[in-house]
Amino acid sequence: MFRNQYDTDVTTWSPAGRLFQVEYAMEAVKQGSAAIGLRSKTHVVLASVNKANSELSSHQKKIFKVDDHIGVAIAGLTADGRVLSRYMRSECINYSYSYESKLPVGRLVVQLADKAQVCTQRSWKRPYGVGLLVGGLDESGAHLYYNCPSGNYFEYQAFAMGSRSQAAKTYMERKFETFTESSRENLIKDALFALRETLQGEKLTSSICTVAVVGVDESFHILDKETVQALINEFEIAGEEAPANEAAPQDQGGDAQAGAADQGPTDQGVAPMDI
Amino acid sequence: MFRNQYDTDVTTWSPAGRLFQVEYAMEAVKQGSAAIGLRSKTHVVLASVNKANSELSSHQKKIFKVDDHIGVAIAGLTADGRVLSRYMRSECINYSYSYESKLPVGRLVVQLADKAQVCTQRSWKRPYGVGLLVGGLDESGAHLYYNCPSGNYFEYQAFAMGSRSQAAKTYMERKFETFTESSRENLIKDALFALRETLQGEKLTSSICTVAVVGVDESFHILDKETVQALINEFEIAGEEAPANEAAPQDQGGDAQAGAADQGPTDQGVAPMDI
Amino acid sequence: MFRNQYDTDVTTWSPAGRLFQVEYAMEAVKQGSAAIGLRSKTHVVLASVNKANSELSSHQKKIFKVDDHIGVAIAGLTADGRVLSRYMRSECINYSYSYESKLPVGRLVVQLADKAQVCTQRSWKRPYGVGLLVGGLDESGAHLYYNCPSGNYFEYQAFAMGSRSQAAKTYMERKFETFTESSRENLIKDALFALRETLQGEKLTSSICTVAVVGVDESFHILDKETVQALINEFEIAGEEAPANEAAPQDQGGDAQAGAADQGPTDQGVAPMDI
Amino acid sequence: MFRNQYDTDVTTWSPAGRLFQVEYAMEAVKQGSAAIGLRSKTHVVLASVNKANSELSSHQKKIFKVDDHIGVAIAGLTADGRVLSRYMRSECINYSYSYESKLPVGRLVVQLADKAQVCTQRSWKRPYGVGLLVGGLDESGAHLYYNCPSGNYFEYQAFAMGSRSQAAKTYMERKFETFTESSRENLIKDALFALRETLQGEKLTSSICTVAVVGVDESFHILDKETVQALINEFEIAGEEAPANEAAPQDQGGDAQAGAADQGPTDQGVAPMDI
Amino acid sequence: MFRNQYDTDVTTWSPAGRLFQVEYAMEAVKQGSAAIGLRSKTHVVLASVNKANSELSSHQKKIFKVDDHIGVAIAGLTADGRVLSRYMRSECINYSYSYESKLPVGRLVVQLADKAQVCTQRSWKRPYGVGLLVGGLDESGAHLYYNCPSGNYFEYQAFAMGSRSQAAKTYMERKFETFTESSRENLIKDALFALRETLQGEKLTSSICTVAVVGVDESFHILDKETVQALINEFEIAGEEAPANEAAPQDQGGDAQAGAADQGPTDQGVAPMDI
Amino acid sequence: MFRNQYDTDVTTWSPAGRLFQVEYAMEAVKQGSAAIGLRSKTHVVLASVNKANSELSSHQKKIFKVDDHIGVAIAGLTADGRVLSRYMRSECINYSYSYESKLPVGRLVVQLADKAQVCTQRSWKRPYGVGLLVGGLDESGAHLYYNCPSGNYFEYQAFAMGSRSQAAKTYMERKFETFTESSRENLIKDALFALRETLQGEKLTSSICTVAVVGVDESFHILDKETVQALINEFEIAGEEAPANEAAPQDQGGDAQAGAADQGPTDQGVAPMDI
Amino acid sequence: MFRNQYDTDVTTWSPAGRLFQVEYAMEAVKQGSAAIGLRSKTHVVLASVNKANSELSSHQKKIFKVDDHIGVAIAGLTADGRVLSRYMRSECINYSYSYESKLPVGRLVVQLADKAQVCTQRSWKRPYGVGLLVGGLDESGAHLYYNCPSGNYFEYQAFAMGSRSQAAKTYMERKFETFTESSRENLIKDALFALRETLQGEKLTSSICTVAVVGVDESFHILDKETVQALINEFEIAGEEAPANEAAPQDQGGDAQAGAADQGPTDQGVAPMDI
Repeated sequence: MFRNQYDTDVTTWSPAGRLFQVEYAMEAVKQGSAAIGLRSKTHVVLASVNKANSELSSHQKKIFKVDDHIGVAIAGLTADGRVLSRYMRSECINYSYSYESKLPVGRLVVQLADKAQVCTQRSWKRPYGVGLLVGGLDESGAHLYYNCPSGNYFEYQAFAMGSRSQAAKTYMERKFETFTESSRENLIKDALFALRETLQGEKLTSSICTVAVVGVDESFHILDKETVQALINEFEIAGEEAPANEAAPQDQGGDAQAGAADQGPTDQGVAPMDI
Repeated sequence: MFRNQYDTDVTTWSPAGRLFQVEYAMEAVKQGSAAIGLRSKTHVVLASVNKANSELSSHQKKIFKVDDHIGVAIAGLTADGRVLSRYMRSECINYSYSYESKLPVGRLVVQLADKAQVCTQRSWKRPYGVGLLVGGLDESGAHLYYNCPSGNYFEYQAFAMGSRSQAAKTYMERKFETFTESSRENLIKDALFALRETLQGEKLTSSICTVAVVGVDESFHILDKETVQALINEFEIAGEEAPANEAAPQDQGGDAQAGAADQGPTDQGVAPMDI
Repeated sequence: MFRNQYDTDVTTWSPAGRLFQVEYAMEAVKQGSAAIGLRSKTHVVLASVNKANSELSSHQKKIFKVDDHIGVAIAGLTADGRVLSRYMRSECINYSYSYESKLPVGRLVVQLADKAQVCTQRSWKRPYGVGLLVGGLDESGAHLYYNCPSGNYFEYQAFAMGSRSQAAKTYMERKFETFTESSRENLIKDALFALRETLQGEKLTSSICTVAVVGVDESFHILDKETVQALINEFEIAGEEAPANEAAPQDQGGDAQAGAADQGPTDQGVAPMDI
Repeated sequence: MFRNQYDTDVTTWSPAGRLFQVEYAMEAVKQGSAAIGLRSKTHVVLASVNKANSELSSHQKKIFKVDDHIGVAIAGLTADGRVLSRYMRSECINYSYSYESKLPVGRLVVQLADKAQVCTQRSWKRPYGVGLLVGGLDESGAHLYYNCPSGNYFEYQAFAMGSRSQAAKTYMERKFETFTESSRENLIKDALFALRETLQGEKLTSSICTVAVVGVDESFHILDKETVQALINEFEIAGEEAPANEAAPQDQGGDAQAGAADQGPTDQGVAPMDI
Repeated sequence: MFRNQYDTDVTTWSPAGRLFQVEYAMEAVKQGSAAIGLRSKTHVVLASVNKANSELSSHQKKIFKVDDHIGVAIAGLTADGRVLSRYMRSECINYSYSYESKLPVGRLVVQLADKAQVCTQRSWKRPYGVGLLVGGLDESGAHLYYNCPSGNYFEYQAFAMGSRSQAAKTYMERKFETFTESSRENLIKDALFALRETLQGEKLTSSICTVAVVGVDESFHILDKETVQALINEFEIAGEEAPANEAAPQDQGGDAQAGAADQGPTDQGVAPMDI
Repeated sequence: MFRNQYDTDVTTWSPAGRLFQVEYAMEAVKQGSAAIGLRSKTHVVLASVNKANSELSSHQKKIFKVDDHIGVAIAGLTADGRVLSRYMRSECINYSYSYESKLPVGRLVVQLADKAQVCTQRSWKRPYGVGLLVGGLDESGAHLYYNCPSGNYFEYQAFAMGSRSQAAKTYMERKFETFTESSRENLIKDALFALRETLQGEKLTSSICTVAVVGVDESFHILDKETVQALINEFEIAGEEAPANEAAPQDQGGDAQAGAADQGPTDQGVAPMDI
Repeated sequence: MFRNQYDTDVTTWSPAGRLFQVEYAMEAVKQGSAAIGLRSKTHVVLASVNKANSELSSHQKKIFKVDDHIGVAIAGLTADGRVLSRYMRSECINYSYSYESKLPVGRLVVQLADKAQVCTQRSWKRPYGVGLLVGGLDESGAHLYYNCPSGNYFEYQAFAMGSRSQAAKTYMERKFETFTESSRENLIKDALFALRETLQGEKLTSSICTVAVVGVDESFHILDKETVQALINEFEIAGEEAPANEAAPQDQGGDAQAGAADQGPTDQGVAPMDI
């Protein structure tokens, strides 16, 4: 029976120069519920799927306000994401206290990435199991970054991560050229359409998603349920038969394949650890 | 013979992006005796099953007062739960000393979750093996949270955890719409009915359960045995033939299956380590 | 050949949510010589079997005075028990120095349990291999606690631990309803009767047991050999043919089974490490 | 099945005196996208391939400004490279603050190499998985260094590293004798030609490469896209059919061979971890 | 092939609640050369076998003076014994400096045992491989303790440890009732007779044993060779044909059996590491 | 399949009393490019082979100036050698600052050896993989030392280390009796002849070797390329057909044999890690 | 295939109570070149074999001066021996600075032994691989001690350690009764005769041995080569056909046997690591 001897310690390189533990942590992001971000010249919209575990619970928060000008959406291990969000919040506070100005988004993103990198180079830690979409506005305009468990970050016009996010990416790639000049309303509309793509035929309602906006003269805030539902209704987005069926199975197949290699007590149909 | 090489260290990711040690710790919660929580606009009720080990012993405490406005019910490793309860208590004291006001429930819950998250990212520790139902009242109203070994937390209208808790969840899902406007008495009544569901035909008496209440103008306190028995009698809850038989076996089956994979010196019929 | 991969590190959870190393440490308690405790409203009696290793040695101490109002009986690893007893003693001294009053029994028991819990959550330590029966008297009355290697503790009316303790428990369960109102003399008498149950036909004499008492107006002290022998004679307890034969074999069988799985240089008939 | 027991810990020597973990980290450099550097007497040009992950993202930065007189191009683990770049930046700032002059390039390179060496001699770390091309100008002229994960560094007239870099090396070896006396424009032109060699038939455009220059009276800066495209057009470099086909397959073969020995969830065609 | 997975780490419990590493350390005591102790009301006598390694060497010291009123005989790892003896010596000095009185024997023995216990509960240490017979005189009379690698200690009237000590124990058990009232001379005589029992037919001479005494009005001191030989002659102890032949083989057999399970470069007939 | 269980940790002794990890580190020295040293009464000459990796690179430095009176040549892991050279440099500076005189060569060599010894006795480090030839002049004359990864050092009249150094040793053993009284020029000449022996038929030119001298009234300095080439020409050393062919294959054979036992991604013909 | 699981960690006891790693370290002493010591009432002579590695090198120092009144000869790992010698030197200096008198030899030996013992009880260290013969003169006369890797020490009239030392021991055992009253010259003569026994037919010359003396009115010093050769000539010791042939093979055989169990890159005929 084959045994990979290079993939249990984060400080062990494989003969081909790979760090498997870091790659495995990136799988945790893929298993989280989907989150997307879009950016125009003046606004950033973050949106995420967050179904409640049961009727009895409220949704688990997947989008967090960091500061008036920055917010973050997470996919993967929620606990890791929350700890990192809080780190971002305190960095913003410290900066604004020291310099009496707002922490530029790009600078925060680098600090966040450095924090993640350290966890890939110490034998007693593990890489964070969460992807973060950081959206914000500063003097250099609107920004959208994706921070990865590897300690890398990327700037995006639009991005989708998490379970079945490929369908959303496909949608956004068709339309991204319009995003830069997009109005606030159209950006939200595209966010909702993209999010719907990840649902695999499930109906989009305000009760299974969160939408947040930050923009010129508009602090980062999460839209209330009524507003989101009104927009869904207005745009006729709900879409009981989603057109993204051809993309999702492929993505799903990859997950199932990886999952089959694992042995665990949780149900196959449910993402483990509520990520 | 198959050997899972990714499930013995808390800092090792599986190829599919899972942390098995964290998931295993969550199994300890499932094996603990049942605990439930319900919330109305004005009150939170916590209730737990706690049978004594023998006639000679008193019950093991499963519900702890944290502060005048907060209490907690635990399921899983009692020692872990007790240590975390004490941590919560000292956080409340420090906060009230510093700010001369009560620590908001949500804030305490986040600190608790962060403490748990750290234990999922250090190789020399282990995740806590306990679930906590935190109920409390603050300026934003009544709250009920579930804190999980993974470092996640969830806000609930009503929740049940521990052995055979699925039956209680089913009961509460049928009735949860009434909870928000529920009176104090009805909330306790529903708590007792839900608790009875977890007993698999055993009779509910005040000697095998604990009930605690916190509400507007009512500090967190555990009801005395007489009061609980009086309520059981009044509501005719005892229920020698419990109707939850169809749900429990399924849950039990899962436990038995997992248990069969283990080798240990304790009796099959008794939960190990008195959790 | 089967190999349990979850039972060698104290920080490793099994797939079913168990900590085997903690459970194994609890086995050490079962192998220690028997100790029992009983409590009335006004007195606590601790008693233990402690046969000398040979004619040349005195008995190994199994009961320790902690403070004027508290004492402890141990079963399991004597060295661990002694270290914990000393910890208790210094906690009592510090408390009485700071507050000029006696450390409440329950509070001491929690501190002791917390100290044990830490050893179940650090990879470089091991759980203590000793059970402690803590008996004491404070403003809230007489108390008897059992502290377990897992970091749990339980309050008892009466308890027995160690080798063949099941027979003593059976005896005490038959009589425990009388304990609360029992006189000092009857409590000691019941302690001696219960202790005899653990001897499997061996004659009870003052040279193989220790008895200690704490009560209202009576500091914790160990009874001298003459007093104990006089009581044995007075109550005609010695009992050459012990009636506990039916219970003991079962308990013994369990030990033998577990022992067969081990490989070690010590004799089968002798408890290893003089526990 | 063969198992190499000397290649999982960075502090373990093989019987032949090799440190496999260091060699494996050097493989990560080979898998990164290509980067090249050239040096004349007066200028250093750094250039790198950096295709965006998708149309939605901007390129990932592979060339960083360190100080006015120094820049760096990286290949391999981007996160490691970014952390080291920041280290270089702060060393330059500290030096210029202390000595009011610019940190000599060679001195910075040694400090960087020493930082890398430490990671090859501590069991709880791992070697950095990144190669760095450091280009700069100081009182002793223009310099180009290659810093390697092993803690070694080398001074070069011209160098190429990363995926398919052999083709670029072959190009530069044919022409390197002209580099010393080369004009700024010719150096950039040669950089672009060399870079094209690594593309395996793909068309060179300003959108998949970055070019940076530092020289006498010219601070280190990255050329803007328009300038780069204009140069590509001017020199007619784009080259749809690249002439380097004979060299690349050989190099590619080596990578594929190494990759086949690994087991991982990422696609074969894509470099893992966005290195 | 069977492999005991519970016996290589001192912090690992076996399923039956045993610490094998501690038990193995106790084997080292059994392999050391024999040492014995006897106690009357007024005197303690310590005696040990210590043959020189060769004609060229002096004997290795097995009995150490700790203070005027305390001495110690060791069996097992001499280096461990010497380190512990020095610890005892400095504890005595510190006590007498602080309190201007002699450190009670029992108190010193507890400190010694605690020091040994710590080595049974830290993963980076090992249990001491030495047994110590501590003899001394204080205000509560003459004392003889045996300190064991497990961190346990026992008070004895007389004790023998080390190689073939069973024969000496048998001798002393026959006579121990006379020890309490024994004169100084008789105590020494019995010590010599008991020591001879361990020699398996070898002749007892002053050159292969050490004898030390502490008593009322007699500081701890080691008897000189002449005195010892005179006593041997006077009592006609030498005994070329030792009567202990029937007891020794049994003990020896156990050792040989355990030794056969080991693989090492030392001669079978010689105790390894000069213990 | 055989597996040596004693050769992966530097703190593990083999049954025959060997430290394999230290021996393996010494193999790294054998794989480095050759370096030699010679000493007369008044001068020390160090010389090394250092071919550039490619036409594009300068040579990697193998000889370092430590102080005016001391220099060092290395063979093996260059990064380790550089770190140790810097250590030597700072020791010299500190000494001369404290004592206003030059650090004696022998004293520096001991400090260097002690630093290496520490790395052979700590489980979290590895032995340095570099040999150092330290040449210098102090009040006691000219000195040449060889420092080894084991923490040993040796004083030599002349020494050669690294790849194919046996041929150079053979040359020097034939001539060493003349070295003490040798003139500066003859010493350099012999150094060049010896170095040529290691080249296996390759032509000796100033571009593949470095030569350094320290002597009475001559600070340690590296000879410039022109001077070296002039000497090669003057002495007619170049030697296209080297006469050392009979010695080299034997040495080479040993390396190849050792190398065959390893598994690595580097080419067989090239020394890994540029050592 | 058999695998000894108890012999790779210094903190692991074998079931028979042995520390294999300590025993293995003692094997390193046996492989070192021979060293001997002899003591009269007034003098101590230390002598060692130290052949140079090659004609080009000086001998490796095996005898070190510690203080005016103490010297040491080592066998085994030279680097370990040197580090310990330096420790001894600084202890002597510190003592003489604090007390203005000479450190007694026995006291230094105990400190040395304690330092060695620590290395046998920490998991991250290894036992020293060196034996030390400490010879010195203090107020209590001349002393000769052997310090062993186990942390033990022994006082000797005469001792030999290292390769083929058995032959020397045999010689000295025949003559040791004369040593105490021996003159300085006879002691040196016996040292040289004993040393010759270890040479297996090789001729004894001053170039392959070192002799040192300390005595009344004679500070510790190493005899110069001329003096040693003169003595060899005077006593006609050289002995081309050594009579020790019958003893040596046996000893040699043991070494060869142990060596065959090891796997390493060094030549069979040469002691590894120049010990």
